[in-house]
Amino acid sequence: MINEKMRGLGAKRSVIRELFEYGKIRKAQIGEENVFDFSLGNPSVPSPTCVNEGLINLIKNESAISLHGYTSAQGDAGVRQAIAEYITKTQGFNVDKDNLYMTVGAAAALTCSLTAVVNPGEEVIVLAPYFPEYKVFIERFGGVCKEVLCDTTTFQPDFERLEKAINKNTAAIIINSPNNPTGAVLSEENLVKLCALFKKAQDKFGKSIYIICDEPYRELVYGGLTVPYVPKYYDNTLVCYSFSKSLSIPGERIGYVMVSPKIKEFREVYQAVCGAGRALGFVCAPSMLQKLIPCCLGQTSDVSVYDTNRKLLLKELTEYGFTCVKPDGAFYLFLKAPTEDANEFCERAKKFEIIFVPSDDFGCKGYVRISYCVKTEQIEKALPAFKKLAESYNLI
Amino acid sequence: MINEKMRGLGAKRSVIRELFEYGKIRKAQIGEENVFDFSLGNPSVPSPTCVNEGLINLIKNESAISLHGYTSAQGDAGVRQAIAEYITKTQGFNVDKDNLYMTVGAAAALTCSLTAVVNPGEEVIVLAPYFPEYKVFIERFGGVCKEVLCDTTTFQPDFERLEKAINKNTAAIIINSPNNPTGAVLSEENLVKLCALFKKAQDKFGKSIYIICDEPYRELVYGGLTVPYVPKYYDNTLVCYSFSKSLSIPGERIGYVMVSPKIKEFREVYQAVCGAGRALGFVCAPSMLQKLIPCCLGQTSDVSVYDTNRKLLLKELTEYGFTCVKPDGAFYLFLKAPTEDANEFCERAKKFEIIFVPSDDFGCKGYVRISYCVKTEQIEKALPAFKKLAESYNLI
Repeated sequence: MINEKMRGLGAKRSVIRELFEYGKIRKAQIGEENVFDFSLGNPSVPSPTCVNEGLINLIKNESAISLHGYTSAQGDAGVRQAIAEYITKTQGFNVDKDNLYMTVGAAAALTCSLTAVVNPGEEVIVLAPYFPEYKVFIERFGGVCKEVLCDTTTFQPDFERLEKAINKNTAAIIINSPNNPTGAVLSEENLVKLCALFKKAQDKFGKSIYIICDEPYRELVYGGLTVPYVPKYYDNTLVCYSFSKSLSIPGERIGYVMVSPKIKEFREVYQAVCGAGRALGFVCAPSMLQKLIPCCLGQTSDVSVYDTNRKLLLKELTEYGFTCVKPDGAFYLFLKAPTEDANEFCERAKKFEIIFVPSDDFGCKGYVRISYCVKTEQIEKALPAFKKLAESYNLI
Repeated sequence: MINEKMRGLGAKRSVIRELFEYGKIRKAQIGEENVFDFSLGNPSVPSPTCVNEGLINLIKNESAISLHGYTSAQGDAGVRQAIAEYITKTQGFNVDKDNLYMTVGAAAALTCSLTAVVNPGEEVIVLAPYFPEYKVFIERFGGVCKEVLCDTTTFQPDFERLEKAINKNTAAIIINSPNNPTGAVLSEENLVKLCALFKKAQDKFGKSIYIICDEPYRELVYGGLTVPYVPKYYDNTLVCYSFSKSLSIPGERIGYVMVSPKIKEFREVYQAVCGAGRALGFVCAPSMLQKLIPCCLGQTSDVSVYDTNRKLLLKELTEYGFTCVKPDGAFYLFLKAPTEDANEFCERAKKFEIIFVPSDDFGCKGYVRISYCVKTEQIEKALPAFKKLAESYNLI
């Protein structure tokens, strides 16, 4: 018997991936330059030079056997040491190599973390709108994905709704800041409030409730903002990080889980993360990519391009009559659908060769996600199409 | 609440990994050259030149954005096309790119395949002795791992036991040929018999039963043997392959699932494999490694070294009075423990600085696995220690 749950997931695919495939076909039909594809979070800015130079150095100077060989399941010790020192230095929060578990990207970091600290039947809170794969990751092992809608005027948490959602069955909450799909950055003030809420809940229910931070966009913030480091505010925290976006290497699948040393049952949680990685079939994170990381810590692709794109899109789309909350991070714009029907909006946009993603699967209807991690010229070229789209709704 | 099942898996680790870590510590204490570590299947023969040359070519000539960017979840189409053509040509079995799903190594291929075609509560037959992670992969999602001991005089299937083990709850069998830990290669004659048994069972129970082939050692066979391609003998077959051993890149995690076009419900099974990959958090196989594969198809590391090692070990250990079934493939020797207590044998070997793995976790007590994928000099240097070990049992 085929596993119907898995078949359904494979048959449906994620809406994002579906649109990405549509875009590929459409580009083949009418030429790449004529399709304005804003569907996927695939960075358009090349990796910083440390990536390719670092890879070539490793290939030329390391023994092939060690470079391409298995590392320990939790990751190469030297690599973890370098990352631990980097976090300690930049966040002012003491992390040791033994708090780190290298993963095949952030998705793997999330599935390992969730599998480690949540049992079937327990609830994981996600703040909507949220990255739709969270629901897939949680439901895969029989967890319950509990959506709590944010305040849609700011896309910060709605604390009244959040408090109501927490109960004795709550095992964890996923925080994604900067946020995909809204670009919102959780403010320090709201983080403090959120942590207080969960500390209260831990006391009330006499159990650990974990904050799982999904932070692939940590370095992608604009206007001088910084993203508070959650383990400094809440002990029972796991940080899932990926180098996909900061180094523009999303296909390479390299990231880590930082299991906070302050977690009450640290040893057990770390072991459970290792056990989950083993049971899910990860063995170890790609070895050469692991060994690249120490050469690249603190470096990023030229993210100023994303800021340029953000400002340009925001200014023009607002002028055309579209509305959205100003994003402070990541590379997404969360645009309100003029008729409040996101799918209709997406379908109509396709007629103008614009591809973006309807928000329904993000747990918040009536919006679309525009991934602006594209070349600025693509945005410039797309603006007339956006204008026509606005005109078709009589927004201008 | 921590997931206790995962914690247990992380706390215990695999025995193999545990010994690997012991070896690392011991080498640091007394020098690498003084420890005879036969614990891990980490190839000692460097990758063929196509690996590092291919990587450097890709880095220098491909656009960084495309090289390091996401591929489709099922893998880059060109890469799958090249692999499909290679299989079609070398196996005389028609495979299309859409039968292939690129994975983060064979472990991922196995977890995706098992998750796709087995439901919680259903049984998966493994032929003991077997790679212990199979049990972990099967039990993770609530499957039942049904061990069926091989004929230990040949390590070919015991068909009487096998027939008894099949029932209406059987969803799949894992075949691993060449075998880890015995090095046995399933003969064509026995494969035909095994397929007949499963065809009969499919008819009897009116359902599909899948053969899942785990084939990372396909190219590592000696004495002119070839490994039959199971999809030619049985329709409902999934082949899990990894380039880890053939190209000596086990840390890089690159492999695939070939979902046979002859599978009765091919489309549904392929979708379920994609769904499983998605739900387990794989996103896509490492992109640069995927793109390396077309340059390396048909090439292998110098596996003649393993054959040299095999012959040397077999000859000498037999002379010292140890007994084992001659392995025809992979790079493992499955040695009988003189007192039939594998753990005692391993502990005693450690006193002579020899590290090998007790067989208990392989589902077959009283043996040890010797990984001879080491430098031939290491074996030569280890022989006096093996001799002393034999003497300590009065075998000589």
